[in-house]
Amino acid sequence: MIPFARVAIVGVGLVGGSLGMALRARGLASKVVGVTRTAETIEVACARGAIDSGTVTPEDGIAGADLIVLATPPDLVVPMALRVLPHLEAGVLLTDVTSVKGEIVRSIEGAAASRGVEFVGGHPMAGNEGRGVEAASADLFEGAAYVVTPTPRTAPSAVARLSELARALGARPMVLSPDEHDRAVAIVSHLPYLVAAALVGVSGGAGRAAGPGFLGATRVAGSPVELWTQICRLNQGPITEALRAFQSELVRLEAALADGARLGAMLEQARAARVQLANTRGDG
Amino acid sequence: MIPFARVAIVGVGLVGGSLGMALRARGLASKVVGVTRTAETIEVACARGAIDSGTVTPEDGIAGADLIVLATPPDLVVPMALRVLPHLEAGVLLTDVTSVKGEIVRSIEGAAASRGVEFVGGHPMAGNEGRGVEAASADLFEGAAYVVTPTPRTAPSAVARLSELARALGARPMVLSPDEHDRAVAIVSHLPYLVAAALVGVSGGAGRAAGPGFLGATRVAGSPVELWTQICRLNQGPITEALRAFQSELVRLEAALADGARLGAMLEQARAARVQLANTRGDG
Repeated sequence: MIPFARVAIVGVGLVGGSLGMALRARGLASKVVGVTRTAETIEVACARGAIDSGTVTPEDGIAGADLIVLATPPDLVVPMALRVLPHLEAGVLLTDVTSVKGEIVRSIEGAAASRGVEFVGGHPMAGNEGRGVEAASADLFEGAAYVVTPTPRTAPSAVARLSELARALGARPMVLSPDEHDRAVAIVSHLPYLVAAALVGVSGGAGRAAGPGFLGATRVAGSPVELWTQICRLNQGPITEALRAFQSELVRLEAALADGARLGAMLEQARAARVQLANTRGDG
Repeated sequence: MIPFARVAIVGVGLVGGSLGMALRARGLASKVVGVTRTAETIEVACARGAIDSGTVTPEDGIAGADLIVLATPPDLVVPMALRVLPHLEAGVLLTDVTSVKGEIVRSIEGAAASRGVEFVGGHPMAGNEGRGVEAASADLFEGAAYVVTPTPRTAPSAVARLSELARALGARPMVLSPDEHDRAVAIVSHLPYLVAAALVGVSGGAGRAAGPGFLGATRVAGSPVELWTQICRLNQGPITEALRAFQSELVRLEAALADGARLGAMLEQARAARVQLANTRGDG
């Protein structure tokens, strides 16, 4: 199935654009078509090598595609899926790249099954603080976890096909249920974002004295807000759980501040876990 | 006063070693002498160009020095100051580089004044996750804030001399009282460290899905614990205050999760503040 004959990427921003670049650079698709909201984005995306051609009409872009990737902002994924599904052939692979899965997968999979379309949710755990196809890069997925989120209704072949694509992009496919995924990203992505925003929120005038540690810890708080408010709405339950677990951990640390040995043991446990994570993920 | 005739650096680790390298590379001292705990460190520090010579005997190292920098672990700064002060000439400049100031400055300044030694606390807001002189570098201080912490008892000439040194190292001197300093670093340094440790503490199995955002947000949690437990004990009051302000901010964010407009406004405020910080500090 790789190379795909025609890949339609609906939404050519940071992730969609990087996907197009990677598909083209690695020879994984004979043709990559971008569906954008504006003609300007088509021009930039073509110039950057993210797509071979583009259109602002989703129905035109997805016609004849054997892989359709929904890479719009989270709020638009389900409406776009329901819009294009009636025009898809049975057997084509439909996926998305949204960082929230439960609500989105549940809203799409029934309609996809009734058309014979192989749908499985996906989420490449990669990104940067940039925005739009201007920030896209062909190596965005290299070494990243690529979460594939089947449900009991998902065709095993859809999981196999998306996992194969993830590997071909240089990523590590990881199969989780949509709810497992949402709990995991609440912890490793959405919580750290809110934490960074809260750190900036309390910094006030002390920010003048900030060193590289503070800047690194809060970098993500400088990224565009609109995407995050959509994520927070779509993943509110798991995010609330993660916030509460985190607050309990802070309370435990605060209680240990007066007891050097206990504090040291907690911090040493975190240090060892962080070092192990770095060793696993090749990050210092 | 620059170049100094003889600088004694007591404790040649990451910061002390970097200071020696910077002094030598920039021609700010005719001779840099290191005082270490072991002969092995002298050898490594000399090989790395951090010092001209070294000794394990503080009294020998500081003899004849016109600048003495205490760069030991936090717990040892006051005992070391009280040990060397009786051997210092009136008029020499004594400073430290510890990331906690109130307790340390109060414990040293009386003894220094009685000897006629010009003492003022200092804290270069620079570092990395490395440890020891092996991780030192001559450009560690470039562009960093260098906090100078006088009290009402401090000689103005001591402030001027340390500020001049900070500028000569490529840093930005910033004058704060010891207590102002301790509140600021509790927020921009000690709190982010505890937050990173807490993030790792709650991550569990979800860490497998961690992307570059999580790794960046938690990097500092991988640094050596011993230094941090000393810092947490010495700066417990301001750290507790910072933790509580931070927890209130998290509660506000959690309450806003269900209200997209309110959440968006809070996140946008943080984004704007972070972008402004990045612009001020030259960090994306």
